[in-house]
Amino acid sequence: MMKNIDISKELKIVEKYIKKDLNKEKTISGLYKYIFRSSGKKMRARLSLISSSVKNHKDRFKLASIIELLHTATLVHDDVVDNSSVRRGVKSVHNVWTNSHGVLIGDYIYSKAFILMVEIGKKNILNELANATNDISQGELIQLDAINNVKISIKKLKKISYYKTGRLFEASARTGAMLTSTNKNYIDNISECAKNLGILFQIKDDLLDYSFDLKIGKPSYQDLREGKVTYPFFYAYKNSDAQDKKELIKLLGNKNLNQSKAKTLIENLNGIKKTEQLAKKYHDKTIDCAQKINNLSVRKEMIELANMALKRDK
Amino acid sequence: MMKNIDISKELKIVEKYIKKDLNKEKTISGLYKYIFRSSGKKMRARLSLISSSVKNHKDRFKLASIIELLHTATLVHDDVVDNSSVRRGVKSVHNVWTNSHGVLIGDYIYSKAFILMVEIGKKNILNELANATNDISQGELIQLDAINNVKISIKKLKKISYYKTGRLFEASARTGAMLTSTNKNYIDNISECAKNLGILFQIKDDLLDYSFDLKIGKPSYQDLREGKVTYPFFYAYKNSDAQDKKELIKLLGNKNLNQSKAKTLIENLNGIKKTEQLAKKYHDKTIDCAQKINNLSVRKEMIELANMALKRDK
Repeated sequence: MMKNIDISKELKIVEKYIKKDLNKEKTISGLYKYIFRSSGKKMRARLSLISSSVKNHKDRFKLASIIELLHTATLVHDDVVDNSSVRRGVKSVHNVWTNSHGVLIGDYIYSKAFILMVEIGKKNILNELANATNDISQGELIQLDAINNVKISIKKLKKISYYKTGRLFEASARTGAMLTSTNKNYIDNISECAKNLGILFQIKDDLLDYSFDLKIGKPSYQDLREGKVTYPFFYAYKNSDAQDKKELIKLLGNKNLNQSKAKTLIENLNGIKKTEQLAKKYHDKTIDCAQKINNLSVRKEMIELANMALKRDK
Repeated sequence: MMKNIDISKELKIVEKYIKKDLNKEKTISGLYKYIFRSSGKKMRARLSLISSSVKNHKDRFKLASIIELLHTATLVHDDVVDNSSVRRGVKSVHNVWTNSHGVLIGDYIYSKAFILMVEIGKKNILNELANATNDISQGELIQLDAINNVKISIKKLKKISYYKTGRLFEASARTGAMLTSTNKNYIDNISECAKNLGILFQIKDDLLDYSFDLKIGKPSYQDLREGKVTYPFFYAYKNSDAQDKKELIKLLGNKNLNQSKAKTLIENLNGIKKTEQLAKKYHDKTIDCAQKINNLSVRKEMIELANMALKRDK
C-alpha cells in the first residue's frame, strides 16, 4: 500500500469528483444533484480505493467514482423496480419526479460511467465492468422470479445475492487491482475476498429487513410485504409444516401484515438463526481470502470491512 | 464500397447475430426473445453497414448488432417511460410482463452492447457510442420537460430531435466509418449526413403521429394525448390567436380528445404544413451532405435512405 493512505479522506475526493457534473439542462442537473445529495456508505468505491492502493495512479479516484456511478444507477433503477419511496433516508427520484425520470436519469448515470471508463481506456477494466453491469441486471431479473415464489431454490437465492451485490463488489476490487497491479494472485485474491464480502453484505441486508431496527431508514419487512422471498423467509418456509406453510404464504406479499405474527413465526422456524449462520459462513470465507493477500495494509482493510459488514446494524 | 454488397442480406446476418443470446435463465431468454421477435426497420444497423462498407472488416456485423442492441434498449426503456402498450405491432414488454422487467431487460441489453463494444476494442468507437448513449438519455429527459409545456422553444424541440434520434443515427454512421476508414472527410461527411437523416426521421415520426394512417401500428395523436409537444402542435400553437390557444391547450394531454376537432385545428393553424416544410429542409440537408461523400455506392445508399425517410408513411 502507498504510505499514509487515508481511505476516508480519499472517499471525500471521490464524492467531489462525482458531484462535478456540469450538465446545462436544469432538469438533468437538478435530478443529478438530488441523487448525489445524500451519500451512502460507498462500500464499492472504498473497495476500489483499497485494492488500487498498492501503487499510485492518476486514475484511482476516477475509477472509484465510476464504480459509485454504476452502483447509483442500479439503485435508481431498483427504486423504480421496487417502487421504493425512500432511498438513503430521502425520497427516491421517482417519488419526487416520476418513474420516467428514474429510468432515464439511471441511463444517464450508467452511460456517464461508461464515458469515464473509456477515458481510462484499459480493456480489461472495461470488460470487467461491462460484464458486471450485465450480471447485475441478470440478478435483478432473476429476483423478479422470486416474487411470491415459495418454491425458489437456495441455489437461485445464492445466485441472486452474488449477481445483485457480490458481483459489483468483486468488480470494484478486481478493476482497482487491475489498475495498479499485474500480480495475478493479488488480483484474484482480493476479487474473491470482495465477492464474498458482497454476498455477506446482501445476506445482512436481508436480515436487517427482518429486524425492527428503525435506523435502517425504511420500514421493516419491506421484502416480505413486496412478496420477495429472501433467506429468512426461505429457511423458515423450508423448516415449516403444512399449517405453518399456509401462515407463511399469507404473510408473503401482504402489505398489511401482522408484524408481531411475522416476527414470531419466522423466528420460531429458525429463519433468522439460519440466515445468521449463513452470514457467519460468508464472513469466514471473506476472512480466509483476505488472509491470502500479501499486502499487509490491504489485508487489514479487508478484514476490517468483513468484521464491519457482519456487525453492522444499518 | 466492397463489391456486390447487399445491405438487406447483411441485415439478415445482423438479425441472426442479435438473436443468438444464450442466457440460461428462462425469464431472461424469454424476455430477450420476445423483444427481438419482431424486427423493426433497422435503420441504424443499416447506416452502420453502409458506412463500414468501404472496406471489408471482420467486425462489421458485430458493430451493426451493437448499434441495434443500443437502439432496442432505448426503445424498451422508452416504452416504460411513455407507458406505451404496443411496440412494432406487438405488445410492449411492460405490458406483457411488468414495468420492472422493462427497466431491467433494457439494462441487460445496454450492457450486452457494451460487452460487445469492448470486444471490438477500438477506443474511438467506444467513446462515440458511450457519448451517444448518454446524449440519448439527455434527449429523453429534456423531452419530459416538453410534456404539457406549450412554452417550449423551437431550439429545445430541435435539441430533442437531435439527441433522441439524430444522435444515434450519427453515431451509427460515424462508428461504422471509423471501423473501416481513417479518412476524416469521409467520417465527418457521412456522420453529418446521418445526423440530418435522423432528425428528418424524427420529424416524420412526429408528423405520422398526427396522421390517421393506421399502418403505423399505434393509435394516432398519441403524442398529443400524452401531452407531448412536438412540431405540429408547436407550429399550430405559435400561429394561433388567444381563442385557438385555449382550444389547443384543451387538446394537450387529453386522453379522450375529439380527433376531428384536433385534425381541423392543427391543420388550419398550419401545424402540419410547417412541419412538412421542416422535414423537407432536413431532407435537403441530408442530400447536400450525401453529395459530399466521394464513394459513389455509399452516396447512392444515403440518398436513397433520405428519399425513403421523407416519403415513408409508416
